[in-house]
Amino acid sequence: MGRHTFLSLLLALLTPGAAIPVPPAVRALNNLHLSTGFTSHPSIVMEYSIHYIQQKVDHFGFNTDKTFNQRYLIANKHWKKDGGSILFYTGNEGDIIWFCNNTGFMWDVAEELKAMLVFAEHRYYGKSLPFGSNSFKDSRHLNFLTSEQALADFAELIKYLKRTIPGAENQPVIALGGSYGGMLAAWFRMKFPHLVVGALAASAPIWQFDDIVPCGVFMEIVTTDYRKSGPNCSECIRRSWDAINRIAGNGTGLPWLSETLHLCTPLKNTQDVQSLKDWISETWINLAMVDYPYESNFLQPLPAWPIKVVCQYLKDPSVSDPQLLQNIFQALNVYYNYTGQARCLNMSETSTSSLGSLGWSYQACTEMVMPVCTNGINDMFEPHSWDLEEFSDYCFRQWGVRPRPSWITTLYGGKNISSHTNIIFSNGDLDPWSGGGVTKDITDTLVAIIIPEGAHHLDLRANNAFDPTTVLLARSMEVRYMKQWIRDFYASLRKKY
Amino acid sequence: MGRHTFLSLLLALLTPGAAIPVPPAVRALNNLHLSTGFTSHPSIVMEYSIHYIQQKVDHFGFNTDKTFNQRYLIANKHWKKDGGSILFYTGNEGDIIWFCNNTGFMWDVAEELKAMLVFAEHRYYGKSLPFGSNSFKDSRHLNFLTSEQALADFAELIKYLKRTIPGAENQPVIALGGSYGGMLAAWFRMKFPHLVVGALAASAPIWQFDDIVPCGVFMEIVTTDYRKSGPNCSECIRRSWDAINRIAGNGTGLPWLSETLHLCTPLKNTQDVQSLKDWISETWINLAMVDYPYESNFLQPLPAWPIKVVCQYLKDPSVSDPQLLQNIFQALNVYYNYTGQARCLNMSETSTSSLGSLGWSYQACTEMVMPVCTNGINDMFEPHSWDLEEFSDYCFRQWGVRPRPSWITTLYGGKNISSHTNIIFSNGDLDPWSGGGVTKDITDTLVAIIIPEGAHHLDLRANNAFDPTTVLLARSMEVRYMKQWIRDFYASLRKKY
Repeated sequence: MGRHTFLSLLLALLTPGAAIPVPPAVRALNNLHLSTGFTSHPSIVMEYSIHYIQQKVDHFGFNTDKTFNQRYLIANKHWKKDGGSILFYTGNEGDIIWFCNNTGFMWDVAEELKAMLVFAEHRYYGKSLPFGSNSFKDSRHLNFLTSEQALADFAELIKYLKRTIPGAENQPVIALGGSYGGMLAAWFRMKFPHLVVGALAASAPIWQFDDIVPCGVFMEIVTTDYRKSGPNCSECIRRSWDAINRIAGNGTGLPWLSETLHLCTPLKNTQDVQSLKDWISETWINLAMVDYPYESNFLQPLPAWPIKVVCQYLKDPSVSDPQLLQNIFQALNVYYNYTGQARCLNMSETSTSSLGSLGWSYQACTEMVMPVCTNGINDMFEPHSWDLEEFSDYCFRQWGVRPRPSWITTLYGGKNISSHTNIIFSNGDLDPWSGGGVTKDITDTLVAIIIPEGAHHLDLRANNAFDPTTVLLARSMEVRYMKQWIRDFYASLRKKY
Repeated sequence: MGRHTFLSLLLALLTPGAAIPVPPAVRALNNLHLSTGFTSHPSIVMEYSIHYIQQKVDHFGFNTDKTFNQRYLIANKHWKKDGGSILFYTGNEGDIIWFCNNTGFMWDVAEELKAMLVFAEHRYYGKSLPFGSNSFKDSRHLNFLTSEQALADFAELIKYLKRTIPGAENQPVIALGGSYGGMLAAWFRMKFPHLVVGALAASAPIWQFDDIVPCGVFMEIVTTDYRKSGPNCSECIRRSWDAINRIAGNGTGLPWLSETLHLCTPLKNTQDVQSLKDWISETWINLAMVDYPYESNFLQPLPAWPIKVVCQYLKDPSVSDPQLLQNIFQALNVYYNYTGQARCLNMSETSTSSLGSLGWSYQACTEMVMPVCTNGINDMFEPHSWDLEEFSDYCFRQWGVRPRPSWITTLYGGKNISSHTNIIFSNGDLDPWSGGGVTKDITDTLVAIIIPEGAHHLDLRANNAFDPTTVLLARSMEVRYMKQWIRDFYASLRKKY
């Protein structure tokens, strides 16, 4: 989900100057009021109350004493004052209600852990806008959109909850999050270990920074997903780019492409052709992230194992260019038209403006610099190198700021994090972001859990009858670790008194 | 020493509206060019080179890309590329050269640890002024004076040194500091454990915040120092305040007091009488901090065990008011006129303006809110309660900012720091700041070292023939821990390759 917003940036890079595509997560959000049953587990009733806490706009300076209201949700149906716990979702780049609805795991384990659930919205997203509608106006208003400020919000919120909710004070808090939210959960435990006894960081690519992992690894995993989902599937996609280029080079190529791909808006020039390829690339990437084992409606309504369905249309790379592109259309149609309601495919859907996408685009242009590149050999995409200078110039044009690509590593330690404790890093092998994740145990208490059949934080989703055994195992290990942290907390509390 | 700057605030509080006295540390600094042999160990030659690194003014926001030059010193005479280490002084509120000259311990152990010494100046002090002469102009320019920004400077500096000094990259760095610098050393290890393998936090009152320790403890320790240094000594001081009040109430009281105390500027009104009492209180506090076992010139040239010398004049609390005040003068004279050069005692010395004091006054009005109070029963001072509201109003008048008294605890964990490792907290029993320090082991690797005969970070001073055994023992334990951290670092490095 949120992870898509990283991609927006990537694609904007592939076509510098292009409008930043909307993260699908945010698109889904806009339709939230139309949707029901986000979770695939109809037996969970997600009852929560909505609250606001007054937060300093700037935790790290004293010149302004401006405040804003941060939204958070509380569900305490299963919470026990005696021996209970608090599960704290460290919200990421989007509306917190959407994350709440899509993190069924927390709801599924609440009773077992006697847990209060708290979902804290990340500043500059959803309803938690430091300057209201001016929040994205310019770099001056955006200045307080950083991971550090977000962690400080979480810290203040936890202290406030412990102070004001009778029975909460002497309970262990566990941070949980997925994607960027997973990074925040891990970083929160690293920087505020006095406030959370541990963290579950699901699909958190904390090493997709600097040159910690090769920039090519992300797209290689995407490619592997397609290669393994059907014979010749990735090869068909690899060949499609040149096919598009060749057809676009013909006199009647653009109208033919527009018609064959059922585009709502016909292609008009070469720039549109680049946008087309970016849009198709984003589609393949999105599918890799949501390649879940059951019918789901995370970013789009999709069949179970959607890449397998896609690959049924992409079996023969040796067909003619027009045939290949017709097959590509069928494949795209799986993602954009599973319900059969779409009358045409809307490339511009991914470039509608929205708060969520604005926020992440800024974050990606400042702290969250996550290099991604392709070479067309180890991956199925057109080659594109990672060019920091180009990126920096783009960011300066877009936001008037320049990225600090090493800051996250300086601040959070990069690979050198072994002195921390009690963090679970879970990753799915299908998830392209697993390439920047922690996939091997670092110490006894900094542990990696791999879900071979998992896409993007499958483990955080609600239980499902079609869940593969590996994710059930992952979740049960996660619960075991969390119970251990809770036990340790109460044991040390007893020692104190 | 730097700790005196805390006092400035305290005294400003005792007399709200009074000018903020200059921290003695800074006064000493101004005379640095006149002084030689700051260390009492004439055999150490302190050779260092002076450097500057370009730092972001704001590490935590991207709206400004302004930079400034942070000064740091390097001494590498004993540094070995093979198996060596880096001792990193986390500079506090003053000129880094002065700290360098007054931290003989680092020079004494450099050879044994094959260590490069680095002394990093704290932003807004010495020559490290983010906005030059405008740095203290207003709360907008002061906005970047925080402990978090200072730690970020240190982090960037360490990364820079490792990147640019051949042989430094794979060496362990140990943070060291005293007083506020000791707090920074401890916090640096807590927040950046990937950059320093451990920290020696000398006389670091990290718990003198919020209501973690009773606000009275500081002045109680001051009082104990006097009570133990001579019979009736603290009682004489306790009675002196009323004696001053009574005499000041007489028609000829002010000129008599001015003459008896040899004040350079005669007292003119009741406000001056309050200033007199504040100035005398500050003197007693300063003496408690620098009650070193040998002749020293830290804040003032002083005899060995100066409080004992002071107490020789304060033996009989039952004498008449005039006699008591004459005795007080003799006692003050020990502090202000040990060299016999002073022709009068200058109360206004402590209110000269200087950058260092401005910086600390701002820090004390924002993050570094360290409650201190007196009740006249457990201590020898006039009663004064801790009044946050009054303090906040004072800060607002002075700087246009309001303190956030709980922020340091939220950020750095207060008493709940047991998940961290490799920090030595050393404290001297004579040091009033030990009341807010960590004086008991928290875990096997968060250890407390007590120096019963130690004043303010005596252990960081150079070896001296008159050092009590307890400080020698403390230093040898400190070296043992540091060697262990260095060994552990190299052992884990070998495992990696």
